[in-house]
Amino acid sequence: MKNDLTTVSHSLAHVMAQSVNRLYKEVKQGVGPAIENGFYQDFDIDKTITPQDLPKIEAEMKKIISENLEFKKEIISKKEALALYKNDPYKTELINEMNDQKISIYKSGEYTDLCKGPHVKSTGELKNYAYKLNKLAGAYFRGDEKNKMMQRIYGIAFNNAKELRKHLLNLEEAKKRDHRKLGKELDLFVIDDNIGKGLPLIAPKGAIIRKAILDYEYQLEEEAGFEHVFCPHIARTEMYKKTGHWQHYKDVMYAPFGIDGDDYVLKPMNCPHHYMIYASKQRSYKDLPYRVAEPGTCYRYEKSGELSGLLRVRSLTIDDSHILMTEAQIENEFKTCIKMIAKIFNAFQLKDYYVRLSLSDPLDAVKYIADPKTWDKAGKKLEKIIKDNNLKYIKAKGEASFYGPKIDYMVKDSIGREWQMSTLQLDLFMGKRLNLTYKDENGQEKNPVILHRGLTGSIERTLGILIEHFAGAFPLWLSPIQVKIIPVSDKFITTAQKIKDKFKENNIRCEIDNRTESVGKKIAENIKEKNPYAIVIGKKEAKSGKLAVRTRGKKNIEEIEIDKFIKKLEEEIKNKK
Amino acid sequence: MKNDLTTVSHSLAHVMAQSVNRLYKEVKQGVGPAIENGFYQDFDIDKTITPQDLPKIEAEMKKIISENLEFKKEIISKKEALALYKNDPYKTELINEMNDQKISIYKSGEYTDLCKGPHVKSTGELKNYAYKLNKLAGAYFRGDEKNKMMQRIYGIAFNNAKELRKHLLNLEEAKKRDHRKLGKELDLFVIDDNIGKGLPLIAPKGAIIRKAILDYEYQLEEEAGFEHVFCPHIARTEMYKKTGHWQHYKDVMYAPFGIDGDDYVLKPMNCPHHYMIYASKQRSYKDLPYRVAEPGTCYRYEKSGELSGLLRVRSLTIDDSHILMTEAQIENEFKTCIKMIAKIFNAFQLKDYYVRLSLSDPLDAVKYIADPKTWDKAGKKLEKIIKDNNLKYIKAKGEASFYGPKIDYMVKDSIGREWQMSTLQLDLFMGKRLNLTYKDENGQEKNPVILHRGLTGSIERTLGILIEHFAGAFPLWLSPIQVKIIPVSDKFITTAQKIKDKFKENNIRCEIDNRTESVGKKIAENIKEKNPYAIVIGKKEAKSGKLAVRTRGKKNIEEIEIDKFIKKLEEEIKNKK
Repeated sequence: MKNDLTTVSHSLAHVMAQSVNRLYKEVKQGVGPAIENGFYQDFDIDKTITPQDLPKIEAEMKKIISENLEFKKEIISKKEALALYKNDPYKTELINEMNDQKISIYKSGEYTDLCKGPHVKSTGELKNYAYKLNKLAGAYFRGDEKNKMMQRIYGIAFNNAKELRKHLLNLEEAKKRDHRKLGKELDLFVIDDNIGKGLPLIAPKGAIIRKAILDYEYQLEEEAGFEHVFCPHIARTEMYKKTGHWQHYKDVMYAPFGIDGDDYVLKPMNCPHHYMIYASKQRSYKDLPYRVAEPGTCYRYEKSGELSGLLRVRSLTIDDSHILMTEAQIENEFKTCIKMIAKIFNAFQLKDYYVRLSLSDPLDAVKYIADPKTWDKAGKKLEKIIKDNNLKYIKAKGEASFYGPKIDYMVKDSIGREWQMSTLQLDLFMGKRLNLTYKDENGQEKNPVILHRGLTGSIERTLGILIEHFAGAFPLWLSPIQVKIIPVSDKFITTAQKIKDKFKENNIRCEIDNRTESVGKKIAENIKEKNPYAIVIGKKEAKSGKLAVRTRGKKNIEEIEIDKFIKKLEEEIKNKK
Repeated sequence: MKNDLTTVSHSLAHVMAQSVNRLYKEVKQGVGPAIENGFYQDFDIDKTITPQDLPKIEAEMKKIISENLEFKKEIISKKEALALYKNDPYKTELINEMNDQKISIYKSGEYTDLCKGPHVKSTGELKNYAYKLNKLAGAYFRGDEKNKMMQRIYGIAFNNAKELRKHLLNLEEAKKRDHRKLGKELDLFVIDDNIGKGLPLIAPKGAIIRKAILDYEYQLEEEAGFEHVFCPHIARTEMYKKTGHWQHYKDVMYAPFGIDGDDYVLKPMNCPHHYMIYASKQRSYKDLPYRVAEPGTCYRYEKSGELSGLLRVRSLTIDDSHILMTEAQIENEFKTCIKMIAKIFNAFQLKDYYVRLSLSDPLDAVKYIADPKTWDKAGKKLEKIIKDNNLKYIKAKGEASFYGPKIDYMVKDSIGREWQMSTLQLDLFMGKRLNLTYKDENGQEKNPVILHRGLTGSIERTLGILIEHFAGAFPLWLSPIQVKIIPVSDKFITTAQKIKDKFKENNIRCEIDNRTESVGKKIAENIKEKNPYAIVIGKKEAKSGKLAVRTRGKKNIEEIEIDKFIKKLEEEIKNKK
C-alpha cells in the first residue's frame, strides 16, 4: 500500500529516535515532526553527535526496518504517561501542559513515543521508500532561547531512490547557487559588521540589477495609472498606535528613540506615510481609485540567528503600493495588480506559481482587528477574485495580516524551490480606523477600502531569489555588464573604446577588460563573471568592422555587424529574455 | 563721505536702541549687531513692543538723526563698565566674561553702549541712507533656551530709497513664492504632524520633480564614470565612533536604539556605508579613482523652531558621492565635479554663484581632526583648484568639516537671494583613520584620499529652492504636468484621450481636464497650476487635426501639428529650457 509521504516521514522520525535510543545512553527527547521533504527529531544526550555518527544511526535504522516492528497505538491516562516519562523532563513538560486526560502513544518494538499518529503499519513498510540523515543543528527546546539547546538530527524522505537522488542533486545545485556565495563572487552586495547584521549594502553591480527591476516596476505602474511618492523612514510612535501596528506588530518593530521629548521609530511598513498624503486634501469619489506607489525601505526585527544574506534581512525595500478605493472598485484594482504581478514574474522567468489565500483564524481573534463579519466578507471577496482570475490556490487560516486577509504568491524557482513573494492584501478596516474619507456622489463622507500591494515583496529578497534562480547568469535586461569587450592587446584599446562608446550611446552596459593579461585568461574571467555577451577585438575584427560575439553558454562565435548586434540586444532587452 | 553699509547698519542699531531708551522705562539690552541688509537689537522691557509701536520708534530715530550727535569712542576700565551697567544684568554678564581689562564704549548724546565700533561720524550722516524697522521676534539671550526670552527689533538699511524699495518688493515677491504656500497649492509635498515635524512626505507631483532631478544627476554621473550603490539608513553607533562623527557631529545625530544589545543610530551622512563597500575587497591603484554615488536619505537633528518646509528638515536626501583616489588624482576629480555642478546649475537656470572656501580655524583645533600641516596642505590645494577652474570665491575660517576643508557653493536665485547648495570636501584623514587601503604600483599598501561631493546638497532643500526660484512655474523638464489637455465638452474626450496616448508614447507628461466645467474655468485653473502648455480641444481642432497651443505666460495661441509640437517639446526637454 502506498502511504502518504508525511506519514512515512513521521514514522522514520520514530525509527531514527529508536535507533538513537539503542545506540546512546540516557536519551531525552524534544519534538520530532515531519517537515517538507523529511523529518527531524530533537535530542538531549550527553555525547555530541557529529556527521561521522550519522551512518551508524542510519545502519541501526535499517536494522529496525528489517525487524518489521508493528506501529501500535495505545491510549493511556495522563498519570500513566507521566510515570512512563519520569526521567525525561521535556516529555514531562509537554504532558503536563496537555488538557486531555487521555494521551495517545505509539509503540514499535521496545520504543514508545508520545504521538497522535498516524504511522505506517510497521517499520518494514519503510523499506519501500528512500531516506537519508543529512543535517545536524542546535535547537532550543520549543524554540525558546531560555530553554536548553538540544541536538537536532534532520532526515529527508522520498518515494524512491530516484527522487532522493534528484533532491540531493538539487541541494548540491542550491549550494552552488547560494546567493551569499555568488553575491560575493559577482560583487553584488556586501554585509559588513561595522554597519550591522542584516543590513545589506547593495554594491555597484547589485545596484544596477536593483535599478533595472525598479525602473521596470515604475514603468508598469505608470502604465497602470499609479502615482509615485517619496517618504522618510521614521515616524512618530503615536502614528503606529493609531494604525494598530504598535499593538499587533510590535515584535518586529525597533525600539523608539526620542526627539524633543516625543517618541519616533523606524517604519516597519509604508502604509501610514501613504495614508497621510491621502489625508492631506479633501478627496472626492472622482479621485478614486487613488493609487500611490513607492519602493520604501522599511526596518523589521529578525533574530540574528535567522538572518541570511539578502533573503532574511533587517532593512528591506518593499515595492509597495496602496490603493484607496470604493468597495465597487475592489475587483478591478485586484485584477490590475494580478496582471502586473504576472508580467513581472514573466520578466523574471518565474513561470510556476500559485497563491495562498491567507485568512484570519476565528479562534485567535485577539491577533486581528475585530468584526468577524467584515473578515468573512473580505475573505469571500478574495476567493472570488482568485477564481475569476484563474489563479491556482490554497487556503491558510491564521496567516492573514492583522487588518485583513491576503493573497500571497508562492513561486517556484528554476530548481523547484518555493519562495513567498508578492502580496495583495484587502483592508476593510483602516480607512475607518484612521478616519480617511472621500465625498461620494451625494456629498456624503465615506471611508475608502484599501488594497496593500507588494509587487514582488522586498527588492532585497527578490534580488537574493533571482541570484539563486538564475545562478548568477542574469537575463540581458538584468545583467550588470551586458557586453564584455576584450581587446587582444593594448594596440586594440582605441578600437575597443570606440565600440564601447557606440554601445553606451545605445544604453548598452559594457566594460572593456584592458588588463595586460592573455586573451585566454580574459575569456575565462568573463565566463566566471557570467556576462551574457563578450566580444574579442583583434586584428581581424578591427579590419573587418565586424564583431566576433561569444554568447554565454554557447560554444560557437558569431560574426555580426555592430548595428545589427545592437538591434538584437535592444530587442532582447525589450522582450526581457 | 560714503560709509560701509555694515557700519551704517551698526550705527542705526545704536540709534534705534537710543530711541527705545527715550521711549521706554528700565530698558535692558542684549546684543545689537549689523546683519545682512540691516541690523537688530535685543531688548528686555516690561512692555511688549507691537508692530504698531514701530512708527513711533522710527520717528524718534529720525529725531536723533536730526540732532546730529557725534559717535564718540571711549576706553574705560572693566570696573567702570560694571558700574555703568550695574542695573543691566545682560551687559554685566557680557562684561564679566571679557578677558580684556580695557573696554571700548561708544557714546552718542545721552546714549552709551558697549561697542568696538566702527561707527559713522555722527547720527546726522545716517540721513543719507534709507532704513526701516520691519520685524519683531522673540530671541533668547545669547541664543540659549535656558536664558530669558528677549524682544528683538529688526531693521533694514540701504544706500538709498530706491534700493530699499526694491528690497521691500523682493520681500513681497518672496512671500508670494514661499515654497510652503506653493507646495500646498501645487500639491508638491505634505508635512503631517502624525508622521512628525521636519519629515516631509513628497506627494506625487513633487515626486515627479524629484525623479526628474535624480534621473538627470544619474545620467551626469553615468557619463562621468560614477557607479551607484544603495545602502540602509542606519548603522551601528560604533561605526560613527570609528569615523569620529560621534565625537564631532553628535549634536545633530539622533539618540541610538538597541538591537540585540548593540546600539544603532540613524545615519547623519552616507560616508561610512560607502567606505565599507570600498573596504569589502582588496583594491589596487588600478581601481582608483573609485567613484561611488547614491541619493542617500540621512537624518539630522534641527531644533523644531528652525524647521521650515523643505528648506530646513530632519530627513534629507543627499545627492552624495565619495571618490576614493590617490593624491595625484585630486585635481582631475574636483574638475569633473565642478563641471557637473555647473551643468546642473545651468539646468536649474541658476546662473549666478560663487564658492566659499571653508577652512579650519587653527585657534579652534578641538573641532577638527588634528594635524595642522595636512590641513594647511589641503586648504592650499583647494584654493589652487578654485583658481584653476576660474571660480569666484571668498574664504571662511572655521567653516570646514571636522575631517577637511571644503568648497561650498553659494547660489543666487531669480530674486537675488543667496542659498548654500553644492559642496566639495577634501578629506586627507579618513582613509588613514579607517585603514582603507589600496595597493600601489609597487604592491605597497596606501590610504586613498577622499572627495565628498554633494551635487546640489539635499534634494529636499533643492526642491524647496527651485519652487521659490521658479515661483512654481517650472521649466518643461521639471514640470509635473507638461501639457494640460482641455476638451471643450464631453464630446471631445475621445479625441483628447487619443492625443494623450500619443503624448504618453513620447514620454510627455500630460493630463486631461475632463470635469464638466466651463472652458474658461478650466483655462483659469490651468494658469493657477502653472503648467507650461495647454491645448483646448473643440470642434475646429478635432476636425483640422491641428493643436491650439497656449504657452504659459503668453497671450497668443499657436496652431501646430501634433508631431511638430512633440518634437518641439522633446527639444525643449533635452535642452532643459
